[in-house]
Amino acid sequence: MEKLTVVKVGGNVINNPESLEHFLRDFAALQGNKILVHGGGKRATQLAEELGIEATMIKGRRVTDKTTLEIVTMVYAGLINKNISATLQKYKCNALGLSGADGNSIQAHKRVVKDVDYGFAGDVDGINAINIATFIEGGMTPVFCAITHDTKGQLLNTNADTIASTIAVGMSKKYDVTLIYTFEKNGVLTSVDDDNSVITAINSEKYKQLKIDGIIADGMLPKMENCYDALNKGVSEVIIGNPTVIRNKEQLFTTLTL
Amino acid sequence: MEKLTVVKVGGNVINNPESLEHFLRDFAALQGNKILVHGGGKRATQLAEELGIEATMIKGRRVTDKTTLEIVTMVYAGLINKNISATLQKYKCNALGLSGADGNSIQAHKRVVKDVDYGFAGDVDGINAINIATFIEGGMTPVFCAITHDTKGQLLNTNADTIASTIAVGMSKKYDVTLIYTFEKNGVLTSVDDDNSVITAINSEKYKQLKIDGIIADGMLPKMENCYDALNKGVSEVIIGNPTVIRNKEQLFTTLTL
Repeated sequence: MEKLTVVKVGGNVINNPESLEHFLRDFAALQGNKILVHGGGKRATQLAEELGIEATMIKGRRVTDKTTLEIVTMVYAGLINKNISATLQKYKCNALGLSGADGNSIQAHKRVVKDVDYGFAGDVDGINAINIATFIEGGMTPVFCAITHDTKGQLLNTNADTIASTIAVGMSKKYDVTLIYTFEKNGVLTSVDDDNSVITAINSEKYKQLKIDGIIADGMLPKMENCYDALNKGVSEVIIGNPTVIRNKEQLFTTLTL
Repeated sequence: MEKLTVVKVGGNVINNPESLEHFLRDFAALQGNKILVHGGGKRATQLAEELGIEATMIKGRRVTDKTTLEIVTMVYAGLINKNISATLQKYKCNALGLSGADGNSIQAHKRVVKDVDYGFAGDVDGINAINIATFIEGGMTPVFCAITHDTKGQLLNTNADTIASTIAVGMSKKYDVTLIYTFEKNGVLTSVDDDNSVITAINSEKYKQLKIDGIIADGMLPKMENCYDALNKGVSEVIIGNPTVIRNKEQLFTTLTL
């Protein structure tokens, strides 16, 4: 099986032009088949403010009304995605910027209304692995923003972490997939305030123990559950580290396996 | 040689949601290999106004400063392109929305400053026919907005008519290409005020005569020169008509050949 690396980069990198440039240069240099999934960053909120539109947040999540959907589509799928494509092309990486509607790559459905109506927020159903493989086999590097579609003409605003794991799982039938989540920390930490306290390797057994010991808790718990879900569904390994992990394998980072 | 139809649709259709929906339904039903190129419409100007940014026009052309480039990238490559993709997917056309940076599909250079500095306006250099053919052979329908790149990391705002003819010419080495320009008239008219005075067939000889007779003049002249340039460079035929021409071949339209 050929190898494929799926990398997720978040808003903290995208918000800083210099960090983003360095990250993209490193990503372009990464050998082999690869896919990039990028988050949104604060530009959408800025644009909404400039337009006098107030963002509605419920339980820490942005509620995607019609105007907000227009804004995130413009910023994520337009401004950010196309600038990432152009920058990767400069570094000789044949990037292909996509939303989930393009090539029907990522299908989702509008989140079901229970206690909260999140508007045009999408929960991912699946991917079109055949089309995505066509791009990779054609020597291209898909770059996904977090906009998907419901296959009935509606765009949807979707969580980028979930998109990354869904793509990693979906592609694991054809490829030996490594999923890399980059974030502001060096990895999974035993002490949240000490960025050097990285647990370098976690397997299912150790993961169970870390939960019992209360070392993995709070905000880290759903992130880790998401990772183990991907591993259980066919992804070979998940790496969690800061954005330079894609360049420098000498530094601290966490590798998760079953 | 397999057939390929390249269709250009302009701002007048994009500005009207109902017209756009009808057009896309017709486009989705068009048989065989196809590519869509879409213009921008007035949404970018509206957004600029909402943001308090005044559009600078010189000799009828928008000057693309840094802020304007951001706006057109958001609106053309984001909002419009992704909504077109999602709508075509609804009609079972496997659309793939792209800018020129994606898959390095369309290369351009920043327009050389002579008497006027048009800013980040791009003049097209060429296309990546291999990547575009990969999409088509993969059963997808490329949908291009008029944003290109200079291969050095810079996005550029480009004329959609020129993109359509450059793609048609570039693909004519692999395909038997028909280029369809849709616009507000029924075709090339003998009398500009009579939409029924369509000249249904024009070849090189007739074209020469129409110019001598002053029937093709003013704004129509550069459009026609662009069409004959495409025909001279390998495109099989150019069709000029209103947007319903892609559905209804019983109506009036103009076919241009060498």
